[in-house]
Amino acid sequence: MSTAICPGSFDPITLGHLDIIERSTYIYDKVVVAVGETPNKKAIFTLAERVEMVEEAVSGFGRVVVGSFESLLVDFAKERNAKIIVKGLRAISDFEHEFQMAHLNKKLDNSLETVFMMASPEYMFLSSSAVKEIAAFGGDVTGLVPRNVTQLLASKFSQ
Amino acid sequence: MSTAICPGSFDPITLGHLDIIERSTYIYDKVVVAVGETPNKKAIFTLAERVEMVEEAVSGFGRVVVGSFESLLVDFAKERNAKIIVKGLRAISDFEHEFQMAHLNKKLDNSLETVFMMASPEYMFLSSSAVKEIAAFGGDVTGLVPRNVTQLLASKFSQ
Amino acid sequence: MSTAICPGSFDPITLGHLDIIERSTYIYDKVVVAVGETPNKKAIFTLAERVEMVEEAVSGFGRVVVGSFESLLVDFAKERNAKIIVKGLRAISDFEHEFQMAHLNKKLDNSLETVFMMASPEYMFLSSSAVKEIAAFGGDVTGLVPRNVTQLLASKFSQ
Amino acid sequence: MSTAICPGSFDPITLGHLDIIERSTYIYDKVVVAVGETPNKKAIFTLAERVEMVEEAVSGFGRVVVGSFESLLVDFAKERNAKIIVKGLRAISDFEHEFQMAHLNKKLDNSLETVFMMASPEYMFLSSSAVKEIAAFGGDVTGLVPRNVTQLLASKFSQ
Amino acid sequence: MSTAICPGSFDPITLGHLDIIERSTYIYDKVVVAVGETPNKKAIFTLAERVEMVEEAVSGFGRVVVGSFESLLVDFAKERNAKIIVKGLRAISDFEHEFQMAHLNKKLDNSLETVFMMASPEYMFLSSSAVKEIAAFGGDVTGLVPRNVTQLLASKFSQ
Amino acid sequence: MSTAICPGSFDPITLGHLDIIERSTYIYDKVVVAVGETPNKKAIFTLAERVEMVEEAVSGFGRVVVGSFESLLVDFAKERNAKIIVKGLRAISDFEHEFQMAHLNKKLDNSLETVFMMASPEYMFLSSSAVKEIAAFGGDVTGLVPRNVTQLLASKFSQ
Repeated sequence: MSTAICPGSFDPITLGHLDIIERSTYIYDKVVVAVGETPNKKAIFTLAERVEMVEEAVSGFGRVVVGSFESLLVDFAKERNAKIIVKGLRAISDFEHEFQMAHLNKKLDNSLETVFMMASPEYMFLSSSAVKEIAAFGGDVTGLVPRNVTQLLASKFSQ
Repeated sequence: MSTAICPGSFDPITLGHLDIIERSTYIYDKVVVAVGETPNKKAIFTLAERVEMVEEAVSGFGRVVVGSFESLLVDFAKERNAKIIVKGLRAISDFEHEFQMAHLNKKLDNSLETVFMMASPEYMFLSSSAVKEIAAFGGDVTGLVPRNVTQLLASKFSQ
Repeated sequence: MSTAICPGSFDPITLGHLDIIERSTYIYDKVVVAVGETPNKKAIFTLAERVEMVEEAVSGFGRVVVGSFESLLVDFAKERNAKIIVKGLRAISDFEHEFQMAHLNKKLDNSLETVFMMASPEYMFLSSSAVKEIAAFGGDVTGLVPRNVTQLLASKFSQ
Repeated sequence: MSTAICPGSFDPITLGHLDIIERSTYIYDKVVVAVGETPNKKAIFTLAERVEMVEEAVSGFGRVVVGSFESLLVDFAKERNAKIIVKGLRAISDFEHEFQMAHLNKKLDNSLETVFMMASPEYMFLSSSAVKEIAAFGGDVTGLVPRNVTQLLASKFSQ
Repeated sequence: MSTAICPGSFDPITLGHLDIIERSTYIYDKVVVAVGETPNKKAIFTLAERVEMVEEAVSGFGRVVVGSFESLLVDFAKERNAKIIVKGLRAISDFEHEFQMAHLNKKLDNSLETVFMMASPEYMFLSSSAVKEIAAFGGDVTGLVPRNVTQLLASKFSQ
Repeated sequence: MSTAICPGSFDPITLGHLDIIERSTYIYDKVVVAVGETPNKKAIFTLAERVEMVEEAVSGFGRVVVGSFESLLVDFAKERNAKIIVKGLRAISDFEHEFQMAHLNKKLDNSLETVFMMASPEYMFLSSSAVKEIAAFGGDVTGLVPRNVTQLLASKFSQ
């Protein structure tokens, strides 16, 4: 049975993330969405809030479970018996950083393989940080994030 | 009448910005330089200082007005009756970020078009942050920023 | 009155080209589609066939005329009294070549400005050569090219 | 059972191709290496020679079969009941072209997913065309291609 | 006598840095490793700690001296009578930033030439920040940094 | 004594090439310009014509000799006792191809180091093929190539 991990900080989860997760379920037996800490940048949602937000967003998909990790991704993968990491690739800047992470993860655990899926064209330029910038100014994020996230962003920024 | 917006944080304005603004005046009827807040990074000049600095730098150009915005760019454009955003493209990293912004702005207001102009070769590697780094160490920024900015930087960093 | 030129070899015209041409008509007073020779690669359609194909594809748009050129683009632009060249940008490889052309055209005629528009996401990965490759193998090009081109490709490759 | 396709022209197969094929066997149940025609460039080995060369190179791997296709890749994939295409990504130029192909293949058959694996660092700058250039000048290709290919190249270029 | 400078913040020095320094010693008469302040990001090691760490790491190389600078690099180079700056290039993001720095340094002192060396494949995706991220989670950094740095990182993160 | 090689096909030599050659003479003791065959593309000037053209263009520089090679570059370098290859980097597409060549040359001869110099901004978008395209249409190539090449191009294309 092939288990794939979709890691990210999901602050918040976007429709681009959701698209990669869904497409992963069609080609792998089990998909673990791994919500991670964000060591270098401050998240606007807590880890617990993000796990709950992701769980609600993927609730309609089969074969998906959500977990969180506060360690190295390779350790989390071993724990979950996963040999595959799935990452969405959007554009050049992603490409650089993701290749670096894939290479270092392979150095730390050679049996772990990272595979990349191309972001769907309509999500090619979508990112969590852009979503936050728009929401902070009261812009409309419909069509960018799952429905439950629209409300969470609204209440977060009206505080 | 075609109105084009040249947005930026201009902290400070460089000769690269000025080149794009001037070239815009040759192909559009009216150019609005839009000085924006910098949500993710701390500016060294206040918004008011930056508006004044830009106004002085463009004072010799015809058909240019300067404004500031603390909202979404699409809202500012609507307010000013502008259908065109002009952005200078320097290099790969610009390209990524600018495409993302152009795409999201089009999602927020489909009637707004972003057009890109190639930075002139001599300004291809010039950025506000590089200017600040050089000025902070007392380096000579002549030929990188408009004359009035040279003095503003000197007094800012001698404080 | 602002006249913009949309140059290309259009062998064949795709929906990506058509999208850039249409968006140009919203921000410029007149758009000249300039069908050029392809010095380095052999076209499958003759110059006359390509002009006719483009004319049919843009027949629904206002303010668009189609012409052909077998000279330097800067000479064609002068002849047509155009100060603006519009090019669609898709991805990194475009970016390199288009910047080179824009820079050289500016060296040849400093009053000519090239502006770039971002390809719409759904056409970000579409090219004339990909269309030809698919058509050559009998694949379905609906949704990639204008309707009239579908038929022209079919008859070209059934010969 | 998950079947993955590793397509290419393999003119000739390199150690970089072999690395991607081998790594694919660890995460998919069955791997079909699909040797294709090269519509735009002339191959130095015939299709039959390339199929035989690949078969010999992968003979030590389990779960791998080799086939050839002279049609659209999506048709070959359907025929072989494969839902996954695996491609190695080396560098920026690959990235552009591979994304374009992945997107067009998804347009032609939405159930087909392309996943990318990062080339191993030691093969990051290796390509079939570089191998041919070195071999043409009598340079040593050991460490760049499988052993059987070294001999095939030597006899090809001594003709 | 040709003197080359290898500048960086070395927070910490990696095997990728060491590789560039060593290769520089083969083609230049004297190599000065210049440990700089990190104006925009907080270092985990002090400037003094980094100088000492680098000195220990390069102690086996001939013709290398280590210095620190808290000024513009061009001033440091003049002081040391160096006409050449050597920088390692890893990937696209490096390329952008390094080109900008090289160009600005040439503007500040036209007699100073920056030359780039390609990172060795095994270090192509290695960076100081990735090393720190792995060390922070207790991951194994053997094979990524010189031996003395492994211990320094361990004691830094166990504090 | 440090000998550096500046290889290329120089069909024709441009002011961009000349700039790299001149800057090389300031930091290396001896510079060998190596004019090579162009295996994959047809040159418009013969190898002998290109050697003569380059010799004339560099005649004002000290410490430069011109040679031709029809073999692997690593063999030519060994013959000339050179340990350094100098290449100009212009933009992304260069970067990819040049890194590949540098890596393969190092595989073929580990003692040979390739160093890259950044193209000067005014030559960042200049290439031999663009020059040929402009000359073929009778455009003015002044400021793009050395004076002697202007005449050679004119007589070549008036034939």
